[in-house]
Amino acid sequence: MAASKEEEEEEEQLRQRFMAPPVSGLRELRRRRRELRSRMELLLMETQAEVCRALAALDPGAAFAVDTWERKEGGGGVSCVLQDGEVFEKAGVNVSVVFGLLSEEAAQQMRSRGKSLKAKDGKLPFCAMGVSSVIHPKNPHVPTMHFNYRYFEIEEADGTTQWWFGGGTDLTPTYLNEEDAVHFHKTLKEACDKHDLKLYPKYKKWCDDYFYIKHRGERRGIGGIFFDDVNSPSKEEVFQFVKSCAKAVVPCYVPIVKRHCHDSFTPEEKLWQQLRRGRYVEFNLVYDRGTKFGLLTPGSRIESILISLPLTARWEYMHTPRESSKEAEILEVLRNPKDWVH
Amino acid sequence: MAASKEEEEEEEQLRQRFMAPPVSGLRELRRRRRELRSRMELLLMETQAEVCRALAALDPGAAFAVDTWERKEGGGGVSCVLQDGEVFEKAGVNVSVVFGLLSEEAAQQMRSRGKSLKAKDGKLPFCAMGVSSVIHPKNPHVPTMHFNYRYFEIEEADGTTQWWFGGGTDLTPTYLNEEDAVHFHKTLKEACDKHDLKLYPKYKKWCDDYFYIKHRGERRGIGGIFFDDVNSPSKEEVFQFVKSCAKAVVPCYVPIVKRHCHDSFTPEEKLWQQLRRGRYVEFNLVYDRGTKFGLLTPGSRIESILISLPLTARWEYMHTPRESSKEAEILEVLRNPKDWVH
Repeated sequence: MAASKEEEEEEEQLRQRFMAPPVSGLRELRRRRRELRSRMELLLMETQAEVCRALAALDPGAAFAVDTWERKEGGGGVSCVLQDGEVFEKAGVNVSVVFGLLSEEAAQQMRSRGKSLKAKDGKLPFCAMGVSSVIHPKNPHVPTMHFNYRYFEIEEADGTTQWWFGGGTDLTPTYLNEEDAVHFHKTLKEACDKHDLKLYPKYKKWCDDYFYIKHRGERRGIGGIFFDDVNSPSKEEVFQFVKSCAKAVVPCYVPIVKRHCHDSFTPEEKLWQQLRRGRYVEFNLVYDRGTKFGLLTPGSRIESILISLPLTARWEYMHTPRESSKEAEILEVLRNPKDWVH
Repeated sequence: MAASKEEEEEEEQLRQRFMAPPVSGLRELRRRRRELRSRMELLLMETQAEVCRALAALDPGAAFAVDTWERKEGGGGVSCVLQDGEVFEKAGVNVSVVFGLLSEEAAQQMRSRGKSLKAKDGKLPFCAMGVSSVIHPKNPHVPTMHFNYRYFEIEEADGTTQWWFGGGTDLTPTYLNEEDAVHFHKTLKEACDKHDLKLYPKYKKWCDDYFYIKHRGERRGIGGIFFDDVNSPSKEEVFQFVKSCAKAVVPCYVPIVKRHCHDSFTPEEKLWQQLRRGRYVEFNLVYDRGTKFGLLTPGSRIESILISLPLTARWEYMHTPRESSKEAEILEVLRNPKDWVH
């Protein structure tokens, strides 16, 4: 069926909103526009474009490289990366929409709580989509930010569909700035509170628990929100909540970048940033479920998964900050998370 | 029992041979001098001192910091670290001698092949000792070297003792130098051949298989030897083999450092080294059994385990060496290991 001129124009407008055409194709997304999968895929693409444009505006000399890629087993993605800019050392915003058949074992691994899934002939049709991003700035007074919003569907042998959402947004400063921390958490809390007052406290704690570098006794950063395996009260309500969170990414982070990207800093402050980047690598490679799942999944795109790693990192033997130093101050908060909003 | 003057002098001499007093104490080691545990602990301390002295002689401005530490649950260790020298970016040589009680589960994890172990009241008395070292030089024409030799004993409920040795020495160059690769492998082969001609080919392959970064489809380096869970033909014979390997570390590596530590290099070569350091981190944090076991073991000394990480590392999105470049040459060998000695 040929598209009408009107439809073509509509597609062109839609395309301009995104960094690249969506994996499922605009026509297909339009055809099944009422399905949650389609609405979620559009939200992911919109979020990617919003964040990339907001960051690019802060770093005028740099530009996002855009790679679209296909997954042999089904689906693909769009990876946007800005590397070695003036403001950002490495900023990656990745959308992936993958589908196919999963073994029962692999399907189980995708859930944080292991509900059992009944497969037909040992295989489960699945669809997994998400936007995932890590922004590592150059200036040690601008924190690293991470967010990820994702949706899963798995079809069981009896035809019922299991679905759930996961996601979160969290901040990893090199130095503590209370004003920034409060702004970040308050913006997230506002996004959560629109849906249910219980969400922010619950997901704030989940974030502190999840981003824990056990062997160091430290959190990766000062937290934010994190949730996984969420499938209540209803698909529509969780989607609206996820949408609010995704829309909060730019207002959470961009004001903090603007406030500090021209701050002066010393070589010692840069060094401490590099050491904290080392801890970031430790968390992501040793503990992060998403990274581990990606590295172990055949056909996954390694370069997109490891966008999260910083451009540079450092490990010094027995580095210990001086008592009462600014370095000791942030460590204290990483060891004992604080409530930033009451 | 007071030590005689003669004994005291002997102890003093022995102490001078090592970087620090052995964990078990010299008197205790002398008392049970015929036991393999004692002889192995002395070999570990000797190897540490030999390697540290050989490296320090190459980097005269720098000195090894020596930390002795105790493990609350039993045992302790000696960590020697040279950081930010002229020749070495980070060189760590660590001895640990730990003992206590293991759960059946933890004991199982210590073996690469899961033989079942019968515990009395669910707990197994164990002793684990080893020397472990990673040397990261500054100059990209000097390769990184790693070695580790270790011995385990576990006592089962019926009083029998399970024991095994593990170990290996391997090289991770930034650029391929065939002469160095041949020298390194030949020296290892000679150490192995004294004991059994089958050992070098078997352990060379094991090394290529073990140091595999699966998600990259690359080995960490150009290999060497690796073995684990070795308990035949006899305790004495395996010990003698391990001793030969440990004695081969300095002749394997030091000539290569000497040959290249004054080579000139470009900023591009330094950058490629930093990217390869990133892969080193990926292997160690994602795959290395020793590191993972250490990070998950309560009471282990994290700073000693993570000595293996380089001072600095780098991750660039989609870095791809030019065809026929020196960077592509080493990648080819990392993807398809070669036989260096015939």
